[in-house]
Amino acid sequence: MDASDDSRIIPVILCGGAGTRLWPLSRLARPKQLLALTGEATLLQLAAERVREPGQFAAPWLVASAVQASAIDAQLGAATLGLLILEPVARNTAPAIALAALHAAPDNLLLVLPSDHLIRDVAAFRAAVARGTAAARDGWIVTFGMRPDRPETGFGYIERGRALAEGVFEAARFVEKPDLETARAYVASGAFDWNGGIFLFRASAMIDAFRAYAPDVLAAAEAALAEAAEGEGTLRPDGTAFAAAPSLSIDYAVMEKAERVAVVPMDASWSDIGSWDALHQVSATDDAGNALQGEALAVDSNNCLIRSDGPAVTAVGVDDLIIVATRDSVLVMRRGESQRVKEAVEALKAQGRDELL
Amino acid sequence: MDASDDSRIIPVILCGGAGTRLWPLSRLARPKQLLALTGEATLLQLAAERVREPGQFAAPWLVASAVQASAIDAQLGAATLGLLILEPVARNTAPAIALAALHAAPDNLLLVLPSDHLIRDVAAFRAAVARGTAAARDGWIVTFGMRPDRPETGFGYIERGRALAEGVFEAARFVEKPDLETARAYVASGAFDWNGGIFLFRASAMIDAFRAYAPDVLAAAEAALAEAAEGEGTLRPDGTAFAAAPSLSIDYAVMEKAERVAVVPMDASWSDIGSWDALHQVSATDDAGNALQGEALAVDSNNCLIRSDGPAVTAVGVDDLIIVATRDSVLVMRRGESQRVKEAVEALKAQGRDELL
Repeated sequence: MDASDDSRIIPVILCGGAGTRLWPLSRLARPKQLLALTGEATLLQLAAERVREPGQFAAPWLVASAVQASAIDAQLGAATLGLLILEPVARNTAPAIALAALHAAPDNLLLVLPSDHLIRDVAAFRAAVARGTAAARDGWIVTFGMRPDRPETGFGYIERGRALAEGVFEAARFVEKPDLETARAYVASGAFDWNGGIFLFRASAMIDAFRAYAPDVLAAAEAALAEAAEGEGTLRPDGTAFAAAPSLSIDYAVMEKAERVAVVPMDASWSDIGSWDALHQVSATDDAGNALQGEALAVDSNNCLIRSDGPAVTAVGVDDLIIVATRDSVLVMRRGESQRVKEAVEALKAQGRDELL
Repeated sequence: MDASDDSRIIPVILCGGAGTRLWPLSRLARPKQLLALTGEATLLQLAAERVREPGQFAAPWLVASAVQASAIDAQLGAATLGLLILEPVARNTAPAIALAALHAAPDNLLLVLPSDHLIRDVAAFRAAVARGTAAARDGWIVTFGMRPDRPETGFGYIERGRALAEGVFEAARFVEKPDLETARAYVASGAFDWNGGIFLFRASAMIDAFRAYAPDVLAAAEAALAEAAEGEGTLRPDGTAFAAAPSLSIDYAVMEKAERVAVVPMDASWSDIGSWDALHQVSATDDAGNALQGEALAVDSNNCLIRSDGPAVTAVGVDDLIIVATRDSVLVMRRGESQRVKEAVEALKAQGRDELL
């Protein structure tokens, strides 16, 4: 179709995610990828910048929620995107990827990447993608493995099998979030990487995999595209047809089942910034280990994350706290326990304070 | 003068204080006495209510800073006050008390009381005042001693001497803030009470004491009253004359030196609410020991003081913290260390953030 005369990789940035793991900064109406967590640029802007290398990548496609269209427009210049696919409803990653794969020409190479992760070493990212390109052209679905530095139970893992080429391995096994004991064994073995949610494949290879393992996803995406509205660089799949797709992750729908899945280890200082603790880990800190962002002041305090987009926060004589403030909400937790943000969210929900979520 | 035909006690509420010990709630422009710290009423309103007993007290006089006139007007109904004395500049308690003593008739009994303390047991307060009245009429300067329950180094102490009457003692010694060792000895002795800053005396007795021990204070107050502007229940001493008064506390200027000082023990659940820790001690707490005020939510947290007049504060899994939020500032400290609020104030001052103070 429109990109068939271009042998460059088409990045497909997935922007549909929502969540409250970074509440109170992230909100239902302002998801993580639209936030500037690590500096001036938002994670979405960083993702677009990551693939701005005209020798390697075509202009990126973005799959996003229709309700985020104006926020995306404000963050990315009009010229940045090759295509904006606006999902009428959220259906997780598998249907989103099916839309992109079906819209592409069969031989197009697509690089699916999340919009809400951080990759510090962009050169290493691009080099890893380059390493995986030949296998992808050859019909492999190429995943990228992030070197684990802790037994994280919140990520999926990929086990490396035999080498296919320099720095490219067959994926022996694809496993979803393990328990702690299993995660420890994976890390100790040295044979497992974290699944970073980045995938490189020929469009036709992914369509074949959908046909084999998730035909209902494929059928819904095909029907939604058949009735799509298209114009001004934007593709709007039909809402009724797309809503029929099951809400499935690409890992569950395809990756855990597909043949010919490869993994390319990528050592690019990756973080999913999936929690305030994760943000603390990737943030610059002062001599006392405090990550201070915005209106934040630490007096005789150590190893705290203090961030405010609202009132001026001053901490005195406290250690290992996470303090996040916005104009209408303040969260205080212990460092190392930032998954407990959901308890705050649930407590506020129970009090009917939905306007704060 | 105007109250000479009335044998009731004239309460003189001192409202001039300012401070940052309850920052960020108390501000230079919004001192502690104007805040509702323990419920719906402000400390000033509670002080006025404390002496609303027409059989015992005349309408109170208030000595306040001229810049607080409108705030006072908003908090106290016009009919509440017998007289509002507006100090053109702040000169601590001795000159303020001299103004009131000079304006009163010589035989008037004046009850000086701070506007920024909490007294839970109003009946006990009034009973103690009643117990001291005969001695005051007899020319004693009567102080009230608060039973110490800890070796507080932030208060002055009064040692009880021989009994003058039932529940009335000669004050053997008046001591300013002791060191910890001394404070421990005072508490252990059982002979010392805290100086609560409440004084009952005949106006002439106080004027005599000023003449003997602080004649410069008396002279400045006399000169300021000679040129005062008076009208509509308000007395405005002359600014230039009053500014000549030295800035002295009544304790230092008079009480530590005067003869015929009595002390009446008062067990009335008194607190100066001089810190966030002090407020925590006098506040109602939930089953987990949390004092929650305003927009405050504690999840699996213990023994915290959380107060917000601004953003909704949610604490998860933390213990022994003081968290205070206003629209523009958030303070986080450890409980038991609330005197460190001054470090926050100093740090913000050093950053030029005076608008937050």
